Amino acid sequence: MIIKMKRGATDAQVEEVERRIIAEGYTPNTIRGVEMAVIAVIGKRPEWMIDTVESMAGVEQAIPIEKPYKLAARDFQAATTEIRLGAATLGSNDVVIMAGPCTVETRDQLLATARGVKEHGGHVLRGGAYKPRSSPYSFQGLGEDGLKLLQEARELSGLPIITEVMEPGTLDTVVRYADVLQIGARNCQNYPLLREVGRTRTPVMLKRGPSVTVEEWIMAAEYILHGGNMQVMMCERGIKTFENYTRNTLDISAIPVIKRLTHLPVIVDPSHGTGKWHLVKSMCLASVAAGADGVLIEVHPTPDTALCDGAQSLTIENFADAARAIAQVAAAVGRSVPGFEPDGSRTGAAVTRVAVA
Amino acid sequence: MIIKMKRGATDAQVEEVERRIIAEGYTPNTIRGVEMAVIAVIGKRPEWMIDTVESMAGVEQAIPIEKPYKLAARDFQAATTEIRLGAATLGSNDVVIMAGPCTVETRDQLLATARGVKEHGGHVLRGGAYKPRSSPYSFQGLGEDGLKLLQEARELSGLPIITEVMEPGTLDTVVRYADVLQIGARNCQNYPLLREVGRTRTPVMLKRGPSVTVEEWIMAAEYILHGGNMQVMMCERGIKTFENYTRNTLDISAIPVIKRLTHLPVIVDPSHGTGKWHLVKSMCLASVAAGADGVLIEVHPTPDTALCDGAQSLTIENFADAARAIAQVAAAVGRSVPGFEPDGSRTGAAVTRVAVA
Amino acid sequence: MIIKMKRGATDAQVEEVERRIIAEGYTPNTIRGVEMAVIAVIGKRPEWMIDTVESMAGVEQAIPIEKPYKLAARDFQAATTEIRLGAATLGSNDVVIMAGPCTVETRDQLLATARGVKEHGGHVLRGGAYKPRSSPYSFQGLGEDGLKLLQEARELSGLPIITEVMEPGTLDTVVRYADVLQIGARNCQNYPLLREVGRTRTPVMLKRGPSVTVEEWIMAAEYILHGGNMQVMMCERGIKTFENYTRNTLDISAIPVIKRLTHLPVIVDPSHGTGKWHLVKSMCLASVAAGADGVLIEVHPTPDTALCDGAQSLTIENFADAARAIAQVAAAVGRSVPGFEPDGSRTGAAVTRVAVA
Amino acid sequence: MIIKMKRGATDAQVEEVERRIIAEGYTPNTIRGVEMAVIAVIGKRPEWMIDTVESMAGVEQAIPIEKPYKLAARDFQAATTEIRLGAATLGSNDVVIMAGPCTVETRDQLLATARGVKEHGGHVLRGGAYKPRSSPYSFQGLGEDGLKLLQEARELSGLPIITEVMEPGTLDTVVRYADVLQIGARNCQNYPLLREVGRTRTPVMLKRGPSVTVEEWIMAAEYILHGGNMQVMMCERGIKTFENYTRNTLDISAIPVIKRLTHLPVIVDPSHGTGKWHLVKSMCLASVAAGADGVLIEVHPTPDTALCDGAQSLTIENFADAARAIAQVAAAVGRSVPGFEPDGSRTGAAVTRVAVA
Repeated sequence: MIIKMKRGATDAQVEEVERRIIAEGYTPNTIRGVEMAVIAVIGKRPEWMIDTVESMAGVEQAIPIEKPYKLAARDFQAATTEIRLGAATLGSNDVVIMAGPCTVETRDQLLATARGVKEHGGHVLRGGAYKPRSSPYSFQGLGEDGLKLLQEARELSGLPIITEVMEPGTLDTVVRYADVLQIGARNCQNYPLLREVGRTRTPVMLKRGPSVTVEEWIMAAEYILHGGNMQVMMCERGIKTFENYTRNTLDISAIPVIKRLTHLPVIVDPSHGTGKWHLVKSMCLASVAAGADGVLIEVHPTPDTALCDGAQSLTIENFADAARAIAQVAAAVGRSVPGFEPDGSRTGAAVTRVAVA
Repeated sequence: MIIKMKRGATDAQVEEVERRIIAEGYTPNTIRGVEMAVIAVIGKRPEWMIDTVESMAGVEQAIPIEKPYKLAARDFQAATTEIRLGAATLGSNDVVIMAGPCTVETRDQLLATARGVKEHGGHVLRGGAYKPRSSPYSFQGLGEDGLKLLQEARELSGLPIITEVMEPGTLDTVVRYADVLQIGARNCQNYPLLREVGRTRTPVMLKRGPSVTVEEWIMAAEYILHGGNMQVMMCERGIKTFENYTRNTLDISAIPVIKRLTHLPVIVDPSHGTGKWHLVKSMCLASVAAGADGVLIEVHPTPDTALCDGAQSLTIENFADAARAIAQVAAAVGRSVPGFEPDGSRTGAAVTRVAVA
Repeated sequence: MIIKMKRGATDAQVEEVERRIIAEGYTPNTIRGVEMAVIAVIGKRPEWMIDTVESMAGVEQAIPIEKPYKLAARDFQAATTEIRLGAATLGSNDVVIMAGPCTVETRDQLLATARGVKEHGGHVLRGGAYKPRSSPYSFQGLGEDGLKLLQEARELSGLPIITEVMEPGTLDTVVRYADVLQIGARNCQNYPLLREVGRTRTPVMLKRGPSVTVEEWIMAAEYILHGGNMQVMMCERGIKTFENYTRNTLDISAIPVIKRLTHLPVIVDPSHGTGKWHLVKSMCLASVAAGADGVLIEVHPTPDTALCDGAQSLTIENFADAARAIAQVAAAVGRSVPGFEPDGSRTGAAVTRVAVA
Repeated sequence: MIIKMKRGATDAQVEEVERRIIAEGYTPNTIRGVEMAVIAVIGKRPEWMIDTVESMAGVEQAIPIEKPYKLAARDFQAATTEIRLGAATLGSNDVVIMAGPCTVETRDQLLATARGVKEHGGHVLRGGAYKPRSSPYSFQGLGEDGLKLLQEARELSGLPIITEVMEPGTLDTVVRYADVLQIGARNCQNYPLLREVGRTRTPVMLKRGPSVTVEEWIMAAEYILHGGNMQVMMCERGIKTFENYTRNTLDISAIPVIKRLTHLPVIVDPSHGTGKWHLVKSMCLASVAAGADGVLIEVHPTPDTALCDGAQSLTIENFADAARAIAQVAAAVGRSVPGFEPDGSRTGAAVTRVAVA
């Protein structure tokens, strides 16, 4: 923490700040310039002190210089966290493809999607049973019935399942069915929920909140890690900006930033990130080129009848096309997509290698 | 909903969209221009159709033109909702002052603040027992012990209590103590929580999320109203923007906007809205001048020892000064602050009029 | 400047940074913590060094702690700059009302507006002759013919004129007619233009750019001051955010911030700031309550025939109503509007006091 | 344009709007629902009518549905505009690499960079002679002396030159030296400048303003096209958001959006877009994967002595590494980088093929 005193702060004010720092167990280093004094406090980041030092007499600003997170930092663990997901390992050299409908609507819809995702090379099946909807009048998801359909789809396809958990009260139910727990963007800073998923040992995908900075997002992951669950993956899904052609602005630069600052794998959701199906493929390719460990794609057998997010869903045919292209770009940056050759064709073993984690 | 077809969309595509609209029970009105066709669908807003119509062949864009909310709208209820809070009535001609510490820390701290708030004209005491903190290493609040201290402060001061509820699991506990339930900014779109507070009959203050548009915010209120709890007040507390001198950008224009679109009273929190105590008074005055029904102010007897948000808290002396000024500006716009004369002096009856709702 | 070295930076890297700082004539103050070193450089802000130090080996971040501006700072001049504008003095205890059409369209339109503005208490007449329009197909203003009409309106009304200058090439022309030069929001960081207006001795109103931080805005003013023109007024007119109900988000908190950091008077333009005429009055009142020295209001005799910005223009009747209310709020915060009594009525001397600066 | 009348608008108000539309030469199509009326006007976008219709009695909102641009639209020209730049053709299957220093500082610095850029496969040399700097105290560029050095560098390297023009007054000078005129981000909506470059026949690179939407950006290009200069390339360089780890947020999704809506080629500047050299390579790769026609990279022989933007400049060695990787990703998406094989190695002809356009 760097404490910048006001011009004209008195010696007594500087000393009062020094006394406070010493009282908290830190060592103040005071540097007096011609026009102002600066007090540096080096050590672990004393969160609350930043808040309160700023209200002391003579202080102009307290600037944090230490990272506020520990367990998530690359400094804490040099190797990227690996998470086994069926035939693929997130955080390894693999690029992982997760795909499926926004919402589980019917058995037919889900199984048709699962078959398509499996057939065209997806590794994980996504599907929402509990849905956060901005309107109380919109379809809110099938709940546990949706989870049961997901379980059936997993048994038939062999694909692990990722599905959203919205509140501590249904966590136990969701954990019984899910291979990966999804924390939605609007719950990115729902600390009671983060604490509870931190107590499970199921992998967690933490979506970035629409107005959450990279640092705040890592702090949200820190809550989960602090609970003892080290299998956390970060999912960039776009931030709110003034641009309104796209639903959100996908922050592709967050991929290398998260990978630099933390040891957590990074996934990108271009479907929510853009809100337009015709941008999904190119944003998948951009994400993989930028170093993403995986992508999360909305796929629907008939997007024009979807109960949710039809406009941003790929057909199965378009998904197949995107998967092939992802494999090619992955190869160009030295990665590989399990089940695909570098030229985008499928490997012979693709059909039989898939198994639940 | 206005459906804009692509240039070159075929008649068959237009007809397919018309058929879909009819199948859903609406009437399409198709207008063919030289270069494109537009299909207007007038009626209640068909939420999911907007999503899916955009993925039909030949459709360029579906533009909603109906409001997505009902119960919150001025059209639904012309008179502003009034909520009785001790000596003041929110939503009436009164301007209501809520004040207190960010966090309940100790009995002494809370009671000293409550005395100061009461003495200098505040109507409601705020204080957090459950605190959403961006770091798992920060003080997380006293929990139910904090609620008990708030109860004691209410008994001693006669001020009703507003305190935050963070999750459905502790709602029953918080309801036993709180006169007003606060939903924090990061829970603005926590739908399971909104649904649960909608089932109570305790007044709710809904803070705007940092990246939530006015329309999304009203939709969040709609969840609570839809649950049957009609005592909802909106609290503007700043939005995330590129400006970094202030912690958030307080959207003062949201005050008249909410009052125009809905019948819900509006409160402003300039402490979180700016993050700097020296901006709090002027933003209180701006809010009242713009039509706010109340303000929510962080007050701490010694901000430089606060465990949370010291930099944005007023001392009791500064609070007294702000309250006087609020009364003067309220008078200038034809409103009044219970307990104050138009010139900012206290009314004779001020001390005895206060009682818990 | 605080230079934060990376964890694991070598002694040689620290020394290399120290050598560089010494070579530039500054004194490095190095503080070594257990996990990292920090080098503080106190003195005037070495702009370019921040850029380049960050690219030196072992450096993680260089954090500026000095203000980058000098002439604009409150430290440089304690008293607020006063600028005489006809009957009012901006920067004094006066609250100044500037009003007029977005664009000068016709002689009748301008003179009718000027009469209305004068009659109802405005102090300065605004009107655009050169207009920055987002479309090349929109009306671009009358150019010098518009300036001549403004001159006529000034002679008839006695009101000083504020009008926009868009480029150095027409500055000489505009200066011949204008009492105040307006720099539009999109030219806030047009440095060649700022430099040129800095060479004139005509007062300048500098609008904030839609994505310009307070610090960047002050730096833009610094360009003008650095050119020798000390009569600069700042105009807040809204910033670009994700909120789309309003055209921009008016940053009312910028008013006290600018007044704290600089000695320059602050004006608010709620017409562009909101884009909706029905929000203009309340935002005027909020601005004055927050400490604004003046407001800039779009007024049109018949907004529904305006060639530009009709939706955000007040009728003359609505302008009169807003002016009265401004006078009342000004009085509540200890200010006064020349020509008005504290209760919003007009002073007897109002008609005769107005004269061109 | 869709005109949405208020609930309760009278028949007379609807008819008044219809009369106005007819008077302007358009045909109103009125649709009356149970609760409100909507009037559709199909035809070319009547810009000013949107502004003014909203201020007519009974009108709630006027929603534009036509694109405001013509010459830039894909509808106007189906094929992507191709611009010859030395050995490469922007807008063709080529991916073009532009590189060089932020600012021309010295002859040695520029020539060393030019040699490095040429040697490692760059196609165009960038370098600023006139620099928009946020501080009047920063180095403002060498002016025409810088242009002369660029000319020398072109002669020695054979690389065409791109350099910034900041104001109409120096346009004639810059045109004499530049192969491509750069319009900087802060001049994206400087309409007098856009008009003037539209009168030249030198290719123009138009950077996106930091708070300019995709539609506003295309409108800025429309100004240049409208002047008769059809050789316009768009440059995405990041937008202002709340995220502060990066200098701006690079909007990679704007690449496919611009390519869908217009026929103009798109370049990405990841140096300004991120402000951090260690993010430049991955953002180049993401851009190319997303369909960019070129990249613009800051390169400096010794970034830690640069007078400007050192923190975001690549060394020549890092540039060489990035160029190789770009060629590999380009190949993966079916594009090619002139002078490179698909595996990132250089073609035999690379050295001799380069010539000025």
